[in-house]
Amino acid sequence: MMTKKEAAAEIRAAKVRLGLTWAGLAEAVGRPVSWTTAALLGQHPMSKDEAEAAAEVLELGPEVVVALQLQPMRGALETVVPTDPTIYRFYEVLQVYGPTIKELIHEQFGDGIMSAINFRLDVRREADPAGDRVVVTLDGKFLPYQW
Amino acid sequence: MMTKKEAAAEIRAAKVRLGLTWAGLAEAVGRPVSWTTAALLGQHPMSKDEAEAAAEVLELGPEVVVALQLQPMRGALETVVPTDPTIYRFYEVLQVYGPTIKELIHEQFGDGIMSAINFRLDVRREADPAGDRVVVTLDGKFLPYQW
Amino acid sequence: MMTKKEAAAEIRAAKVRLGLTWAGLAEAVGRPVSWTTAALLGQHPMSKDEAEAAAEVLELGPEVVVALQLQPMRGALETVVPTDPTIYRFYEVLQVYGPTIKELIHEQFGDGIMSAINFRLDVRREADPAGDRVVVTLDGKFLPYQW
Amino acid sequence: MMTKKEAAAEIRAAKVRLGLTWAGLAEAVGRPVSWTTAALLGQHPMSKDEAEAAAEVLELGPEVVVALQLQPMRGALETVVPTDPTIYRFYEVLQVYGPTIKELIHEQFGDGIMSAINFRLDVRREADPAGDRVVVTLDGKFLPYQW
Amino acid sequence: MMTKKEAAAEIRAAKVRLGLTWAGLAEAVGRPVSWTTAALLGQHPMSKDEAEAAAEVLELGPEVVVALQLQPMRGALETVVPTDPTIYRFYEVLQVYGPTIKELIHEQFGDGIMSAINFRLDVRREADPAGDRVVVTLDGKFLPYQW
Amino acid sequence: MMTKKEAAAEIRAAKVRLGLTWAGLAEAVGRPVSWTTAALLGQHPMSKDEAEAAAEVLELGPEVVVALQLQPMRGALETVVPTDPTIYRFYEVLQVYGPTIKELIHEQFGDGIMSAINFRLDVRREADPAGDRVVVTLDGKFLPYQW
Amino acid sequence: MMTKKEAAAEIRAAKVRLGLTWAGLAEAVGRPVSWTTAALLGQHPMSKDEAEAAAEVLELGPEVVVALQLQPMRGALETVVPTDPTIYRFYEVLQVYGPTIKELIHEQFGDGIMSAINFRLDVRREADPAGDRVVVTLDGKFLPYQW
Amino acid sequence: MMTKKEAAAEIRAAKVRLGLTWAGLAEAVGRPVSWTTAALLGQHPMSKDEAEAAAEVLELGPEVVVALQLQPMRGALETVVPTDPTIYRFYEVLQVYGPTIKELIHEQFGDGIMSAINFRLDVRREADPAGDRVVVTLDGKFLPYQW
Amino acid sequence: MMTKKEAAAEIRAAKVRLGLTWAGLAEAVGRPVSWTTAALLGQHPMSKDEAEAAAEVLELGPEVVVALQLQPMRGALETVVPTDPTIYRFYEVLQVYGPTIKELIHEQFGDGIMSAINFRLDVRREADPAGDRVVVTLDGKFLPYQW
Amino acid sequence: MMTKKEAAAEIRAAKVRLGLTWAGLAEAVGRPVSWTTAALLGQHPMSKDEAEAAAEVLELGPEVVVALQLQPMRGALETVVPTDPTIYRFYEVLQVYGPTIKELIHEQFGDGIMSAINFRLDVRREADPAGDRVVVTLDGKFLPYQW
Repeated sequence: MMTKKEAAAEIRAAKVRLGLTWAGLAEAVGRPVSWTTAALLGQHPMSKDEAEAAAEVLELGPEVVVALQLQPMRGALETVVPTDPTIYRFYEVLQVYGPTIKELIHEQFGDGIMSAINFRLDVRREADPAGDRVVVTLDGKFLPYQW
Repeated sequence: MMTKKEAAAEIRAAKVRLGLTWAGLAEAVGRPVSWTTAALLGQHPMSKDEAEAAAEVLELGPEVVVALQLQPMRGALETVVPTDPTIYRFYEVLQVYGPTIKELIHEQFGDGIMSAINFRLDVRREADPAGDRVVVTLDGKFLPYQW
Repeated sequence: MMTKKEAAAEIRAAKVRLGLTWAGLAEAVGRPVSWTTAALLGQHPMSKDEAEAAAEVLELGPEVVVALQLQPMRGALETVVPTDPTIYRFYEVLQVYGPTIKELIHEQFGDGIMSAINFRLDVRREADPAGDRVVVTLDGKFLPYQW
Repeated sequence: MMTKKEAAAEIRAAKVRLGLTWAGLAEAVGRPVSWTTAALLGQHPMSKDEAEAAAEVLELGPEVVVALQLQPMRGALETVVPTDPTIYRFYEVLQVYGPTIKELIHEQFGDGIMSAINFRLDVRREADPAGDRVVVTLDGKFLPYQW
Repeated sequence: MMTKKEAAAEIRAAKVRLGLTWAGLAEAVGRPVSWTTAALLGQHPMSKDEAEAAAEVLELGPEVVVALQLQPMRGALETVVPTDPTIYRFYEVLQVYGPTIKELIHEQFGDGIMSAINFRLDVRREADPAGDRVVVTLDGKFLPYQW
Repeated sequence: MMTKKEAAAEIRAAKVRLGLTWAGLAEAVGRPVSWTTAALLGQHPMSKDEAEAAAEVLELGPEVVVALQLQPMRGALETVVPTDPTIYRFYEVLQVYGPTIKELIHEQFGDGIMSAINFRLDVRREADPAGDRVVVTLDGKFLPYQW
Repeated sequence: MMTKKEAAAEIRAAKVRLGLTWAGLAEAVGRPVSWTTAALLGQHPMSKDEAEAAAEVLELGPEVVVALQLQPMRGALETVVPTDPTIYRFYEVLQVYGPTIKELIHEQFGDGIMSAINFRLDVRREADPAGDRVVVTLDGKFLPYQW
Repeated sequence: MMTKKEAAAEIRAAKVRLGLTWAGLAEAVGRPVSWTTAALLGQHPMSKDEAEAAAEVLELGPEVVVALQLQPMRGALETVVPTDPTIYRFYEVLQVYGPTIKELIHEQFGDGIMSAINFRLDVRREADPAGDRVVVTLDGKFLPYQW
Repeated sequence: MMTKKEAAAEIRAAKVRLGLTWAGLAEAVGRPVSWTTAALLGQHPMSKDEAEAAAEVLELGPEVVVALQLQPMRGALETVVPTDPTIYRFYEVLQVYGPTIKELIHEQFGDGIMSAINFRLDVRREADPAGDRVVVTLDGKFLPYQW
Repeated sequence: MMTKKEAAAEIRAAKVRLGLTWAGLAEAVGRPVSWTTAALLGQHPMSKDEAEAAAEVLELGPEVVVALQLQPMRGALETVVPTDPTIYRFYEVLQVYGPTIKELIHEQFGDGIMSAINFRLDVRREADPAGDRVVVTLDGKFLPYQW
């Protein structure tokens, strides 16, 4: 059986080989680009139709179609603290602003959390004369502590 | 000398005692609420005026005023992986979506990172009939790898 | 300011000194015993009334009343893997049965998790001729992955 | 020799390929579903009959039959703290409620532990108008500290 | 409240000051020497009578009597791998012989464990012309895996 | 070259295939059962005669004979804290009773250690009406600190 | 697909086999030697032209050309603290002088950091009668904390 | 006795209180600014004269004078990986460029290291129209591996 | 009770205050200098006479005399890998030459270890025109593996 | 390309197969035995002549000759704290005597370190009627802290 991790490696290679984009793959799959990228990288299971649509564009075989449908064992960082600078900055944001985010959630909502399950993510480019900006929006349902 | 950490503890206590809010403190200081919260929790240095404005509303003394102006040694998590559920969910987002964010930044901008220094953060409540949502926006300047 | 951890230590001491039980404290507070124990050990914030009811029975002062109302920074294990045998057995259950629980949740519900926020816990004694049994029930709302 | 881990991978693949369920496999094996799932994932040794029954339904060969009978080296988490959200929530329960569970066991039974060896586990779906619930029951014999 | 750890420090100091032995303390308490030492070091709760008997011989006050009766949070090593050579050798035994012990338990008893709860320990000196020997006996009830 | 670890895997497989026991293998080798098990699991080097005797009974080839004679790089636990419950209980004994063992060695012998090199180990079953017991004896020469 | 790590291994081997130098490779690629070395070791993506120029001199095939163009997952140390003495000395510099560097950056620039993205590195030999010196220059744009 | 760490805290406080700079302190002490900062932060021992000169400008007492002369136990990071962003960037440089630096040292010097003992450090501001730059120079004697 | 660690701090301070040397202290105590230094730093228990001799020269009181006689809990490094460069170099020797030392011990002695208990240590200065040398001799009894 | 680690495994196997000794290999190579052993285990690069001399005696091919000449990435312990008892004892020496060695180096030489680069190592057997001794000499140039 091909694992989801092996499928992700095949997908990255095919994407470079064929000059595809995540945005284009998302369109082919018919889902938002962040969700599609996460799914193709092995963090969400796809439906059979989604998997087949992706595999067709990527010119990959039935093993990949099966792997994309498997229920994932999630968790994509290879080390507890990420070493890649692009990913590390988000860990740094957590180090510097984690307690701030916690305080502001509690002030606005009371005791509870932002769901990471009923959740969507957006990454977009915002033009700015002082240098364009990366704007990442984390948008999750509030879940109050409830006995 | 009072440390920034001790000052933050005093501030939390005074805030509860006086029934203040982070939003109210931000208004008194004249800065955005996320920045002000982070600064009062010891992650940013305040100017003398900002520190005095905060201390006055919080009814705290000159030691706190000095502490708030000190250059911080940043990093607010007490463990490498946070245990508090409200903060942990953001670490989980990084575990599940970290490589997705990396791929999308590279697709939209090329090789580089979102700055965590030239950076602003917003936490807001978005009404939703299926349950209100926590929307956290991370907004940093794109920095291309540049030799 | 008294921290929630210091308040918990005071509470444990008073409980032994006065010969109280968690069940009795829960009755005084008017909440389930598991919730009340967790709250008195510093893992949930109490309302002012609950805190005052607890402090009165425990013969403790106003500092404890304030501490019990504070929003907690949750996470009660002092080491990543607990060393106390009574607590360790639950970590062992996770080591041996974690993937089993995951498979069964996915088989019965699809992709998602058991909420640890919209959640209740029960610990009870079940008589058994072959030796009484500890029955711990973890009961959380199912949260489907939902974009 | 095929390891128990390799056998588990074969079993997961066959289960998806043939559209089987853990419940169905448990019926074929004639043991409770939680026990059977744990055994097929490599955490319990099966008897020869159980292993053969499982292998037949899964259409797998004699190597798997042997592997399922081996005495396991138990412990299924690949990291000290699990990263998969479905499993992590149980670790979080331990972080938030571990000391509560300990206190309540001691209050009801005295000094001792819930056995994780003389132990059974149940995962079931409970219908609830506010959203169905995952109910996990941990049921182990009480073992008093006894010199 | 005096913690069990603080009580243990007081006890060690008093023992040196008064020239007492663990064997003598065990006799005063009326329990086996290994159990008594573990209890005085904070790893077992004592009954009121035992605690008072120990405190009297050690010439310590009522705070110690209370501390000795408290339910312990067990786990006495300050680091995951012990650095003290006398204790480390036992960790080394586990590194070199752990799987051997596991194999021999399974061969003699089937699938299960030696209980560390229904358990007793003995440390004794055995005369030997080639150099006296430390003989440590670990004696626990066998617990079979039992669903 | 076959490593000692690969040889151990071959040996476990052959032992199951041929229905042998560690006790029987020890008899064939002519050494105590604990020593023989440890050696066959790769923690002690065997003499040529011992290795050949073991390989003959196990019906294994000359590569195994060589591997069994190699000087081992000792240390058999795959994680710093063992996760297998049968082995973990001995780590727990060290957590709960480590300082007790240290105190009793020093009381009976003075400053020094139990050797883990000039050392023998025994695991035996002791019948007990309340449930048979696992009795593990650790028996090492006392080594005084000596400059 | 050949990974960047596998490509780096091929490159090191070819470099030794053909007696090439990093300086020579940098000249062939037309980029600074530090940048070129980092890119060939898998820490920067190359353009198609650069990758082809490098592969030609190294007499390596098209798989290497593709690998060199891939976006890297950066982070080259195999352990959190490096063990190789040549690399460790730089970690030691950070242990001994890290806070000094921080203080001096803040004194000369205010609150902010040296960018590791808009950054260049130089390693050169400086003749010195008391023994030649390794001079490593880290040169990054100052980024002020800016909301 | 005042530790070097406590002295460093006193020094930082006095420096803020009196509006001094590290550059000014270095001048008073008569040593380079990087060395002086490191020494005042507790990473180098000062001579009696240097310590007295520093203490005089800082208006601190004889305890600080003694502490500054003590031989340090070096190592200033509180965590294995630094969390403060200003310091972290240098760890990131090591993650991304560590093997590059190693290769270039070996190419220019042969097998050996840059000394971190016979070593000097400089941090300076370099004006740049595209944004001023932080230039950190690490300058250590080359030490060849020599038996 | 004064701990051995607190006594060591007092001793270091007194040694600096009185201008004593470890060599001089060893002479006063009548034991080798390495042993005496280790004992005064808390790693060996002293006899009453030795402790009194040391305390007299150091002009310290009876609390120190008692502390020096206590049985130590050994292990003097504050982190698993030492950060102080003078101590780290010995860890580096172990990283680079550990397996070499192991091979040579086994070649010269057979299977066994150098005792760290029946052990003595010497640190001396050896004049050398190319720069004086630190010569550290580790001298321990060979202990063969012996069942 | 054969790595130095793979070459080391080949060398160990050949050494056993041909009944060679490290001492004999050192003679063939014409270098000290400790250096030669370290080099053959992959911790030092050999010259072409040395590599060929070693390979000839070991009856190994040209791939090994190349591997032995490669610049090593040093660091031979597979875990941060070694588990093999023969190697662990040297880590224990560091735990017990590390600060003693540091104090004595500083007393005899001033502030600085023993070089682990300009360094030689000797392991020899010293006859002793009370049991032969392992004498390990670490001999490195003193390097004073020098700005």
